[in-house]
Amino acid sequence: MQSEEDHENIFLKEKPCRILIEINNPQTDNYPSEIAKATGCTYSHTVRLIQRMENLDLVTSNKEGRRKMLQLTDKGRRIAKSLSETFDELR
Amino acid sequence: MQSEEDHENIFLKEKPCRILIEINNPQTDNYPSEIAKATGCTYSHTVRLIQRMENLDLVTSNKEGRRKMLQLTDKGRRIAKSLSETFDELR
Repeated sequence: MQSEEDHENIFLKEKPCRILIEINNPQTDNYPSEIAKATGCTYSHTVRLIQRMENLDLVTSNKEGRRKMLQLTDKGRRIAKSLSETFDELR
Repeated sequence: MQSEEDHENIFLKEKPCRILIEINNPQTDNYPSEIAKATGCTYSHTVRLIQRMENLDLVTSNKEGRRKMLQLTDKGRRIAKSLSETFDELR
């Protein structure tokens, strides 16, 4: 029953963590659609999670034409770093 | 709707994280019943989570009479430290 178990799933909510870390990744364009693709989340789930992160002051955004460009706040960046280290430790 | 939102809930599964960190806390007796009390989890949920952590080689136990005494493996200790730092960052 627990053969699929891994260390991440027991402690971390994987998708939100991956989204925050991905926004911090300089190799990904920080549009919600690109972040969704890179993390394997649906677009609507990604948008909803990013909205929660904006409410928590971890992410800010500004409009580029019709697209929304995301970036992390200082606090968002610190948390992304810390989650990223935790992922490494859990691997 | 999101007024109860906090930083921990979006990224971390709180109870498993707290249990691992609590086993690492030298001020708590490392019996499942004490860990349950310290983390505010039910006894049965605590026992089930600890069993998963044993399966993942994060926790080991030995019998002391009728009681089970828990301790972290090296890997468990590293993860507890890392999760604990993440909690601090999220606060």
